[in-house]
Amino acid sequence: MSQVLKDIWRIEPVSRIELVDETKLTSGTITNLTLDLLKAGLLKETELTTGSVGRRRVMLRLNEMSFKIIGIDIGRSSYEVVTTNLIGQILDSQEVLIDRDTDPLQVLEGVAAIVRKSMSQISEQNDKLLGIGLSIPGPMNLKEGVLLVPPNFPHWEHFEIRKELESRLGRRIVMNDDARTSALAERWFGHSRKLKEDSFVYITMGHGIGGGVVSNGEIILGNNGLYGQVGHITVVPGGELCECGNRGCWETVGSIPGILRRWNPENKNSTIEDFFKAVQAKDPSAERCLEWTLQMMESTLTTLFNVYDPALIIIGGKLYPYLESYVPRIRHHVQASVYPSARSHVIIESASFGTSQSAVGAASLVFGELVERPLDVLDEVNMANE
Amino acid sequence: MSQVLKDIWRIEPVSRIELVDETKLTSGTITNLTLDLLKAGLLKETELTTGSVGRRRVMLRLNEMSFKIIGIDIGRSSYEVVTTNLIGQILDSQEVLIDRDTDPLQVLEGVAAIVRKSMSQISEQNDKLLGIGLSIPGPMNLKEGVLLVPPNFPHWEHFEIRKELESRLGRRIVMNDDARTSALAERWFGHSRKLKEDSFVYITMGHGIGGGVVSNGEIILGNNGLYGQVGHITVVPGGELCECGNRGCWETVGSIPGILRRWNPENKNSTIEDFFKAVQAKDPSAERCLEWTLQMMESTLTTLFNVYDPALIIIGGKLYPYLESYVPRIRHHVQASVYPSARSHVIIESASFGTSQSAVGAASLVFGELVERPLDVLDEVNMANE
Repeated sequence: MSQVLKDIWRIEPVSRIELVDETKLTSGTITNLTLDLLKAGLLKETELTTGSVGRRRVMLRLNEMSFKIIGIDIGRSSYEVVTTNLIGQILDSQEVLIDRDTDPLQVLEGVAAIVRKSMSQISEQNDKLLGIGLSIPGPMNLKEGVLLVPPNFPHWEHFEIRKELESRLGRRIVMNDDARTSALAERWFGHSRKLKEDSFVYITMGHGIGGGVVSNGEIILGNNGLYGQVGHITVVPGGELCECGNRGCWETVGSIPGILRRWNPENKNSTIEDFFKAVQAKDPSAERCLEWTLQMMESTLTTLFNVYDPALIIIGGKLYPYLESYVPRIRHHVQASVYPSARSHVIIESASFGTSQSAVGAASLVFGELVERPLDVLDEVNMANE
Repeated sequence: MSQVLKDIWRIEPVSRIELVDETKLTSGTITNLTLDLLKAGLLKETELTTGSVGRRRVMLRLNEMSFKIIGIDIGRSSYEVVTTNLIGQILDSQEVLIDRDTDPLQVLEGVAAIVRKSMSQISEQNDKLLGIGLSIPGPMNLKEGVLLVPPNFPHWEHFEIRKELESRLGRRIVMNDDARTSALAERWFGHSRKLKEDSFVYITMGHGIGGGVVSNGEIILGNNGLYGQVGHITVVPGGELCECGNRGCWETVGSIPGILRRWNPENKNSTIEDFFKAVQAKDPSAERCLEWTLQMMESTLTTLFNVYDPALIIIGGKLYPYLESYVPRIRHHVQASVYPSARSHVIIESASFGTSQSAVGAASLVFGELVERPLDVLDEVNMANE
């Protein structure tokens, strides 16, 4: 059933005959499986009229409004709760600013209050909640649902986040780190699905630089859960000491604090808005600093094409909107630097969900589980909604 | 049968009871499958006496001498043909020096003559040839068996190497590029098997720097066949122009020509032996050049741990023997630079097969096919040996 649901997700709208072609299953099996999916409310049928004689075909689609998903993103400067439908459209979103010193338990109470309200709304509308996902800075022990020692995120070290949230909400929580959930937002709801490419690198550029690498549709974890730490590619050997312990990481020169430290080491209060205003005003030191930032970014993106050979690179994060207008130039330089045989494949896209990327990514974790294990997830939903 | 053969390869010597545990197959199925593998000559039984009462257990092992494999490596300065057994031990090896201007057809005639002699020897000893593998500089179109435009390898552009060799030898050839075959030598015959780790990065350092990344036992190819181009990680942004089109690649500073250009730009005839003699003689310019080379290597290895998060990194190639004595220092610096949670996992090993790495790797391609599709490969062997 997982394979059929995944095929429908990938190529909808699709007729049963096309599904037989696609899956190599018998038409009897397809009829039964799609009937089960229709009964579960995951699919809907629409009629399509084609050709001059008006032949009508019954097409299957995801029934995007049949279930709601709640995605929680807890970040260093805010938390956000979104409600989405089955195709990642945001139906409701609420963001609360916090600062680095806010107590985790206080954050959790705030999060839980919003989630409980969203859950009531969903059940008042006679809708079903498919599940709740959580996105939070890594690294973490995914199996135990416990944070490790996330950089720049004091008070949260070794915090048993999953247990704490599950006990407050009475539902199982599926979680991952914010770079990976952001990547999975693209996998299940964004560019990866639209372009039918299931191997890509997602980069989030903001106060830090993180990454998530999806290969053949799966997020790659690596041997210690550290695969894809693209912000910690050395770009200035022997350079500035990074929080990770290495020197000259891309994050030390390419993140918001990295840019500001280089532009104006004296003034610790300048913001990234100030910096880009200075660039617009053609301030020479800001222009030089930007030029270096872009060159480092081009170097690193070239490295990423050479080490991961992805179908595309998708970039998001708080810094990215300021850089977006430079993408044509960046793409041009990267194209000139990668292997000749890869030059026509240099695709750089902007993240699909703006400032809600991680929260939508948290919701996409739930959708991913549905596609991989539809029967288990639906059983759980029915139990929870009874 | 593939799964059982792979389990035996991985954990031999192994009893049938242990195989039932390992594979979750029934003991009847294991009895039948191992009987087939014994009949095919791939396994042998040995008796193991354990415990004080001298209980005897029948253990299964790979019958390493049952089949021979021929591995061909065609490089820029020599070609080599090895005959190995089923566990990658070299039984016979012959190397012929060539220069960059040697005509490909002349190389092929030389290769074919040696291979034919090896084939006769194998059949004179009533042994069976499992297959022939080929290793050659990439990039290549693996499906068509045609080289693309390998750097530093004139005359070989767009050469239909597989067709040319198959027509001369009358056997199917399985091929891959030299960095990947070298990695697969470790996968099937070397460290990866010994350490029971199936995710690692293999680096070959010589006139160029290449890489092969194995994840969950599979060599990763990427979207354009360019995954794992570790020599083309940017380490000096805006640095020297590399053959690949990028600037400041690790290859431009870390390869043999890169070191020699930096050490002694005037003298184009100095060799890497000269350089390391000068280092031993404490020549200050050589010592400075070596220090920079090692720092770039440490930076890049840190990057590799951060992007691929492998269980281990294995290094080989013509340059590596000169660097091997520095590995403790390199490991120490890399350990200090990777993520705290990965520090205890920084494992750097030397390649297992010295100067014959690529040729043994070519042979390992054949072994890999046997493990993945044992029935097909054995059918083909029986046809060819009839």
